[in-house]
Amino acid sequence: MIEYGNWHISASGYRAHAPQHLESLFCQSNGYIGSRAAFLQDGALPYERCTFMAGGFDYISPGITDIVNLPDLFHFTATVAESTPGQSGGHYTGFHQTLNLKNGLYTRGAVWTDEQGRETAIKISRFISMADKHLAALCIELTALNHESEAVLLLGLDAGVLNLPVHDDQTMVNHQTVQMLKDAGGKSGQGLCGLTAQSRTGRLTIDMRCRVTQSDGTQEDGSTADCPARKLTVRLKQNQTVRAEKLISVNGPDHPPPGDFTSWLEESGKAWALRWENADIEVEAEDPQLQAALRYNLFQLMQCRPFDDPNVSVGARGLTHARYKGCYFWDTELFIQPFFLYTNPAAARDLVRFRLNTLPDARENAKALNLEGARYPWMCAVGGKEQCHTWDIGRSEIHITADVAYAANEYLRVTGDNSLRDELSQLFVETARYWASRFSYDGIKDVYNLLFVKGPDEYCGVSSNNAYTVILARHNLQLALEAAENGYAVSPEEPAKWREIIEKSQVGYDAERELYIQDDDFLRLEPFDFGGRETDAPVYRTLDYDRLQRFRVLKQADLILLILLLPELFTESQKQAIWSFYEPTTLHDSSLSFGIHAWAAAVLGKRDKAMAYFNKSLFLDLENIMGNTGTEGIHAAALGASWQAAVFGFAGLSLGGTGVPSLSPRLPDGWSAMRFAFYANGKRYRAEMTRDGWSIREKGEEIL
Amino acid sequence: MIEYGNWHISASGYRAHAPQHLESLFCQSNGYIGSRAAFLQDGALPYERCTFMAGGFDYISPGITDIVNLPDLFHFTATVAESTPGQSGGHYTGFHQTLNLKNGLYTRGAVWTDEQGRETAIKISRFISMADKHLAALCIELTALNHESEAVLLLGLDAGVLNLPVHDDQTMVNHQTVQMLKDAGGKSGQGLCGLTAQSRTGRLTIDMRCRVTQSDGTQEDGSTADCPARKLTVRLKQNQTVRAEKLISVNGPDHPPPGDFTSWLEESGKAWALRWENADIEVEAEDPQLQAALRYNLFQLMQCRPFDDPNVSVGARGLTHARYKGCYFWDTELFIQPFFLYTNPAAARDLVRFRLNTLPDARENAKALNLEGARYPWMCAVGGKEQCHTWDIGRSEIHITADVAYAANEYLRVTGDNSLRDELSQLFVETARYWASRFSYDGIKDVYNLLFVKGPDEYCGVSSNNAYTVILARHNLQLALEAAENGYAVSPEEPAKWREIIEKSQVGYDAERELYIQDDDFLRLEPFDFGGRETDAPVYRTLDYDRLQRFRVLKQADLILLILLLPELFTESQKQAIWSFYEPTTLHDSSLSFGIHAWAAAVLGKRDKAMAYFNKSLFLDLENIMGNTGTEGIHAAALGASWQAAVFGFAGLSLGGTGVPSLSPRLPDGWSAMRFAFYANGKRYRAEMTRDGWSIREKGEEIL
Repeated sequence: MIEYGNWHISASGYRAHAPQHLESLFCQSNGYIGSRAAFLQDGALPYERCTFMAGGFDYISPGITDIVNLPDLFHFTATVAESTPGQSGGHYTGFHQTLNLKNGLYTRGAVWTDEQGRETAIKISRFISMADKHLAALCIELTALNHESEAVLLLGLDAGVLNLPVHDDQTMVNHQTVQMLKDAGGKSGQGLCGLTAQSRTGRLTIDMRCRVTQSDGTQEDGSTADCPARKLTVRLKQNQTVRAEKLISVNGPDHPPPGDFTSWLEESGKAWALRWENADIEVEAEDPQLQAALRYNLFQLMQCRPFDDPNVSVGARGLTHARYKGCYFWDTELFIQPFFLYTNPAAARDLVRFRLNTLPDARENAKALNLEGARYPWMCAVGGKEQCHTWDIGRSEIHITADVAYAANEYLRVTGDNSLRDELSQLFVETARYWASRFSYDGIKDVYNLLFVKGPDEYCGVSSNNAYTVILARHNLQLALEAAENGYAVSPEEPAKWREIIEKSQVGYDAERELYIQDDDFLRLEPFDFGGRETDAPVYRTLDYDRLQRFRVLKQADLILLILLLPELFTESQKQAIWSFYEPTTLHDSSLSFGIHAWAAAVLGKRDKAMAYFNKSLFLDLENIMGNTGTEGIHAAALGASWQAAVFGFAGLSLGGTGVPSLSPRLPDGWSAMRFAFYANGKRYRAEMTRDGWSIREKGEEIL
Repeated sequence: MIEYGNWHISASGYRAHAPQHLESLFCQSNGYIGSRAAFLQDGALPYERCTFMAGGFDYISPGITDIVNLPDLFHFTATVAESTPGQSGGHYTGFHQTLNLKNGLYTRGAVWTDEQGRETAIKISRFISMADKHLAALCIELTALNHESEAVLLLGLDAGVLNLPVHDDQTMVNHQTVQMLKDAGGKSGQGLCGLTAQSRTGRLTIDMRCRVTQSDGTQEDGSTADCPARKLTVRLKQNQTVRAEKLISVNGPDHPPPGDFTSWLEESGKAWALRWENADIEVEAEDPQLQAALRYNLFQLMQCRPFDDPNVSVGARGLTHARYKGCYFWDTELFIQPFFLYTNPAAARDLVRFRLNTLPDARENAKALNLEGARYPWMCAVGGKEQCHTWDIGRSEIHITADVAYAANEYLRVTGDNSLRDELSQLFVETARYWASRFSYDGIKDVYNLLFVKGPDEYCGVSSNNAYTVILARHNLQLALEAAENGYAVSPEEPAKWREIIEKSQVGYDAERELYIQDDDFLRLEPFDFGGRETDAPVYRTLDYDRLQRFRVLKQADLILLILLLPELFTESQKQAIWSFYEPTTLHDSSLSFGIHAWAAAVLGKRDKAMAYFNKSLFLDLENIMGNTGTEGIHAAALGASWQAAVFGFAGLSLGGTGVPSLSPRLPDGWSAMRFAFYANGKRYRAEMTRDGWSIREKGEEIL
């Protein structure tokens, strides 16, 4: 379905509007504004034309937020000789959409033939600027191929959009739209439109401006309620292209700055080029799709990055969909942040600062559950308050707090940036206090249990002593101990308590098999009939979670992720035992699973498995492998897992104990070379691997 | 606060409207219609004037019901010389409310003195007929004491009421009302009013009629939108009482039947007398309040009884409040049904038939969770579909299914009525199939575990092998085995499987202490600081359930209930061990706890504890011991637990293996005699205990 170029992806054929896979794939974003590729012209409904802003949340009920669907900045309609291309009474030929990965330009072109046989070539181009986060632009080109007719274009800013809040429970579907915009006021005049609107409770004020220009014809006011617009009327002459541009600014200056579509695109392209210089991974591979697919993953990762703003983070679907209400999860820290850590340390620093900035709310979360210290929320929108109110996940999937501490420490370890060390010491200590109050001391056995928790594998029930959570909590406690040793003031008895929990906390381990056990219930779960599955659809579509939790089956990587995060804690045979036991029982019904399995397989020498899983992760959205890229948006964590599989798995990049980078290349069959740049300890390196060997260079100097 | 007569309770003093304790206490019902004692005249808001109908549910969102607040049938307003008694500009003296427990008549009287010093005696009487379930009546008497003035009375049927849906989560408060009535149409003329309305989705049609009569003055139409009414104008003369009556029919005949307030009350009183003949418990005790309090409990139990309708059951708050959306719980089977089983077997039969009638939905519930057989819902409204959608309770508190089977078997055992035996065999077998699919076989240890369940004690977390649930599930399997042995057709392999689960299912047991353990996690929970509590309020008001579940603390009776349900399974020392271990760790933050502890204490010879717990249960609503009788209504299960404590605990009524009743009196100190009637095996008995001995007589013949 998707055609892969070296630096672009494209697709042919016109489809009626729907929450389509392609509308997600061609979503554009600069990390501040994101917009799905759904057009009014195609009949997209008010809740399908989606534009989101980083941190653009508002409340839909007390304490519960949704990400507000902003006015449609790419709003346009076109009619030629009273026929509306894309609607009934005619047909498209040669319909083709392309996303240029190098500069973020989306273009679509086709010939519209109306019922009278009039053929008109239509080309739409749009981008969101990577140079100035407030800017975006749209260009429409019309060419009458066999006729002369009047064309009418309407270009505006449309506040007539709606939210369709998505149910947290993946098995439920909501059909009830919500009006999240209010008090929309527009004006239009002299080639300019302006629109202001408030979000539901007034938390957000949205201010959009646009300048509309045209190569020919006349322009007048075409506003309707909620949609200030310019109406362009032009006489199309055969084989002469008429061009109209809309230059848009969102929450920016009073007037869109000077320039035109081409000059703005050029500026944005330069900004993209700088980003690509650090982020690109060049692969010489037999499979020609692989390079573009990999670049697509990197492209979307860069589109996710909050635009120099430490008060927002990355949603589980970036800005490509309102799934999960736009909330931030552990996906950011463990799946997405590593990419930025090595390719854009300033962006990683902002992600870490986001967690520092929300430490006060994390304290409130702990207090609300009658615990000490700071507890990071499973789902996070405004500030750091818990947005997930379910019992099994919101209260029980508590590893997020240790994940945040782990990722913060990775920032220190990889960047060597000590400017955040003091603040992070506070984070380590306050999260350690949370854990110290969350473990339950069992006086009979003199052990600490972590009761009623759920690990990363969400098909497990609420159990106890989930190994991933316990071991990462110990790591969190260890970070606090080190902070205290390095001078961070704690009360005298705290370090002893933390050490005692590290020593006496419980993880299941079968010494004979050298096997870590996922949780206290895992071995007594019922065997799952893997052969009996009738479809590839996630099993939660056919089995209720209540039933699922009693089967010995994993949704996603759990211990397999842990051995990658903390490899030094496991012997090679323990790692192999974990792989052999858990990999065959994992259904990968979470998008977080494939990339991690690819990475683990590469590290453990399972070459075929590594490549198979890598392909699943890499093409997860491109080929709609989960079946929900259209209805849920781009799976941001999978993008980051693909990067980790490539760089940590196939290239084997590691900083070791010394902070000096090294590679352990494990290139898949069919790959002849791999090259990428990365940062470590404040230095920029280039890594290169071929079949003959590998090198890491700093400023052209080979360092290893 | 409450004054206790032998056959009545009363209260003095006027209070402004609020969801008051007294509005619940004085609630009247015949089991078909129930109405809180909240009056428009006092300023009660549209969601405070509550009238409910048995089974009167409708949907507030897809799949979720609420119990519909019906039009206010006791609607009235009165003004005297343009002053409105109960409102500002005057004051009441001698305000006194009384509920006659013998005939269900509620009366209130007072003298209203307006700002000009005009004194008017006002008396309101109302009842809901126990003779004809469709009928109710209201009477207003006005006497000018020191003046002659014009009085205006408005008596109507008011559809201007609202629902205030109560959040399932006890810690959340809802302030958002919902309009559950629509298409209200009224008419008024010639002393009659009529009102029809539909519930929100049209599931219910409500048809109310009333006849309004008066001893003096004129009558005209006084209708407003939503409220057909008669307006009575009368000249009050000094010391002459004017009387107005409203004779109401709900979903009954076209016109209210002949008669007046007095004659209708007489009929209703006769029906009450018949009920009392079977239900009363006479106690000669030093505490004079005890007899009335006990009768109040019995009175409310009788008010709960569905009026000869096997398609509805008893809500956790009867018809006294919309708390829990009016839903039916295990409260019915284990707490309320025993009272009817022994005092009104036909009513018990209807309750059992309700579960039989909802077996098809119970099958659907099991199927929805990918299980076999039939699963009764934790919360039940329309049909038998699960109304509880929380993870920790709705999915996990599964003992309800075994409770239903247990209670059905109790019906057979106590009544000896075999006419339902075949249908109940089906219920036993289908619920056993549910259990057989719900247990998880552990092939390593060759045992069956009941994973991820919550027992009756709701402060425990979702754990495994809750002893109450496992042992009652075994009992359910045993009932199915007996049904199969008695000829109910099952597949050949089923009995063996059921036997295997009975044998190999797991319950924690400490042989040294002869102690059953509540669940797999109980012994490793953290000790709770019982001394550190600052208030008597339920601990869930200050500790989140997530924190609570890690403390070794019980909300309510769990194993202590089990030893009463299945006493033959436990030795005396095992029972004593259970009491000694669990009773001190129970907070009784559930209204289901006190009565059960009273019963257990009596059986185990703890005389002081028995009486202390009995008092808590008996006065639970009367003295507002839980603090929520006003905001949540009458706790129906506690009423039934009080009865069980008295009859099974203090009197020691038992049928033994032979079906012949016997007593083991354990009268509390200060009780000199106790007498009650009961049915067993189709015969009616009278039991009498004094300090000198005890007897059971059938038709005047002493049988033991």
